[in-house]
Amino acid sequence: MDLALARELSQEAETKIVLFVMDGLGGLPHPETGRTELGAAWTPHMDRLAKESICGLTVPVAMGVTPGSGPGHLALFGYDPLVYNIGRGVLEAAGIDFDLQPSDVAARGNFCTIDGDGVITDRRAGRISTERCEELVAGLSEISLGEGVQALVEPVREHRFVLVLRGDGLSDEIADTDPQRLGAKALASEGASKAGKATAAHVNAWVSEAQAYLADKSPANMLLVRGFAKRPDWPQMADVFRLRPAAVAHYPMYRGLAKLVGMEAPAVGPALEDSFAVLRENWDRFDYFFVHYKHTDAAGEDGDYDRKVEKIEEVDAVIGALAEMEPDVLMVTGDHSTPATMAAHSWHPVPFMLRSKWARADDVDDFNEPALARGSLGTFPAKESLPLAMAHAGRLRKYGA
Amino acid sequence: MDLALARELSQEAETKIVLFVMDGLGGLPHPETGRTELGAAWTPHMDRLAKESICGLTVPVAMGVTPGSGPGHLALFGYDPLVYNIGRGVLEAAGIDFDLQPSDVAARGNFCTIDGDGVITDRRAGRISTERCEELVAGLSEISLGEGVQALVEPVREHRFVLVLRGDGLSDEIADTDPQRLGAKALASEGASKAGKATAAHVNAWVSEAQAYLADKSPANMLLVRGFAKRPDWPQMADVFRLRPAAVAHYPMYRGLAKLVGMEAPAVGPALEDSFAVLRENWDRFDYFFVHYKHTDAAGEDGDYDRKVEKIEEVDAVIGALAEMEPDVLMVTGDHSTPATMAAHSWHPVPFMLRSKWARADDVDDFNEPALARGSLGTFPAKESLPLAMAHAGRLRKYGA
Repeated sequence: MDLALARELSQEAETKIVLFVMDGLGGLPHPETGRTELGAAWTPHMDRLAKESICGLTVPVAMGVTPGSGPGHLALFGYDPLVYNIGRGVLEAAGIDFDLQPSDVAARGNFCTIDGDGVITDRRAGRISTERCEELVAGLSEISLGEGVQALVEPVREHRFVLVLRGDGLSDEIADTDPQRLGAKALASEGASKAGKATAAHVNAWVSEAQAYLADKSPANMLLVRGFAKRPDWPQMADVFRLRPAAVAHYPMYRGLAKLVGMEAPAVGPALEDSFAVLRENWDRFDYFFVHYKHTDAAGEDGDYDRKVEKIEEVDAVIGALAEMEPDVLMVTGDHSTPATMAAHSWHPVPFMLRSKWARADDVDDFNEPALARGSLGTFPAKESLPLAMAHAGRLRKYGA
Repeated sequence: MDLALARELSQEAETKIVLFVMDGLGGLPHPETGRTELGAAWTPHMDRLAKESICGLTVPVAMGVTPGSGPGHLALFGYDPLVYNIGRGVLEAAGIDFDLQPSDVAARGNFCTIDGDGVITDRRAGRISTERCEELVAGLSEISLGEGVQALVEPVREHRFVLVLRGDGLSDEIADTDPQRLGAKALASEGASKAGKATAAHVNAWVSEAQAYLADKSPANMLLVRGFAKRPDWPQMADVFRLRPAAVAHYPMYRGLAKLVGMEAPAVGPALEDSFAVLRENWDRFDYFFVHYKHTDAAGEDGDYDRKVEKIEEVDAVIGALAEMEPDVLMVTGDHSTPATMAAHSWHPVPFMLRSKWARADDVDDFNEPALARGSLGTFPAKESLPLAMAHAGRLRKYGA
């Protein structure tokens, strides 16, 4: 369902929808046991939920496409990630909870190392410490671009920072200075339009001053910027789906993503119990809750099969508390797969179940990939999960007479 | 497959396709037994057909979308209901077998009750009897709009009627007079274009005279009209699919829908045996037959689980007669779900099987929702069922060299 149809059919109701996302949930079989992380985990509570649910596997972007964190979540929020594409700079800014203004242009920055000829010898400047990054960013923040334009710089982690240009008439249609390979020199930014040319000139002026400041700061003696982007002006969930949506997420990037589609995002502590507490406190204020759990992805990215299994079991031990809040619709899924055997995001379809009293539960009573593949939803686009939840929550009108 | 591709690939053949639609067939589990209506029904004949068929569940419009009768059938006829959208007025006219002309503009009408200030106090005029509706419509039919435009009025049932404006240059892009809520007054119709303005003026003039006539006919002392629409000029099945199609349906609305895509629709008695007789009589004249069975939906809409089960069993007892006619392709399905537990149309996927000597039959040998969910077709768009049938009937050419 595209957003135009969603806007036409959505109606308000006195019902609650909860989307519980275990980041990077999907896995691959362990070479010795043949079991995925989810298959190996002892998950009696999730299995019982599966028995009461419609089950399947989702495709976040398209078959074979490995999603970044942005597209994976946007699909779950009902937004086609091939239509609603988020710029790298905006995602990076969201990740540090930077309050981007509509006219700001954000970019991702890397400190790097160059040799005497200006040739890049290390694109990450030896992964300097986050503390060193903060010191350097403090220095860069002194750079002035003169009347009308500000360059705001914020540290992220290690060699990474965010650059935000603030002023009137800036364009994000400008080229990266990052050649994305070793052995090349940093590029000058370029723009095609008049606004692009002017913005690129500001970037180049700023890089030039930054280079002078960094000259004696080796290994971080240069920087690269890429992924210039403005905050997108997207349809908001409240308007399209007539929901009052909230994000219950500890990490800023997920809160930032959620805000782009109009969710409120109260501060949340790091533990699952913190998320559940925020959920309970805000139960009456909202009717859609996106709850984010990070540790499954982190374990998968680290290639740590056993830790990913443990993290799934930790969720299983407390997920009953979610079900006990009796949302009209409870979805348990991931935003993408992060198989520990690959130690990276992957394209594999993602475990999904939806429980509701109006669900025509299928025969699946195990919450793991091979069992879910036999569910009645089959393998389906993740962006359809919100309309499906809306239907089960009595929030979609009939189409046509 | 869209209609352009269908037009390119379709070819004639000496084969017969039968689409048997049990209206509102899909169901939900009974709270006590956990069985859907179809699961509870004793259906040995359908189960045997399933064993020889490819099986699955269809999505009529989109995941989570509850279809009206129009979209549900159009999808089965191979027309994407999100592209081929039928106006309320046209559907209502089809429902009474009104022979709409291409330039006619049709609307659905309701008698209603207003108070002394013109405020609507009952949008259905206390559901007056159909006889009273017929009397009032006879009076309204006397209203003359002067040179060049006629207002044709036909009773439907209880408080409902159809208004058709006939004349040259009329537009259906005009606004409803029905505010669709209590406590408001009837609206004046409005149009944006020149033709729209002129048509809206005719509507307002007619409503004004109608109001004068109805003034002393309380509770039906006013009327509301909505859903202005012209008969759509859609591609016809004979041209797109090179089929000679016939509708075997007792109820006018389904015959009307079928005519919009170019089916012939002979008169049919109310009993299943009447449908089969018409089928046999016309077997040589057509090569595609849409056979409609209404009672499953009616029972579902009434929330009568047991009656829906009975109606399914009644079909099962005689469906062998259909198979014995030896169509090259036999599809048995529904146009949408109408679970008795919901007493309404719903978004749940719809039971489907297709039998043909060229079908690669799967393992399913039970015609009910959980079994069909394991079929090789999975959960798929209903609009793909006709191309699938065409293929199995040797009526689709190879694509590409």
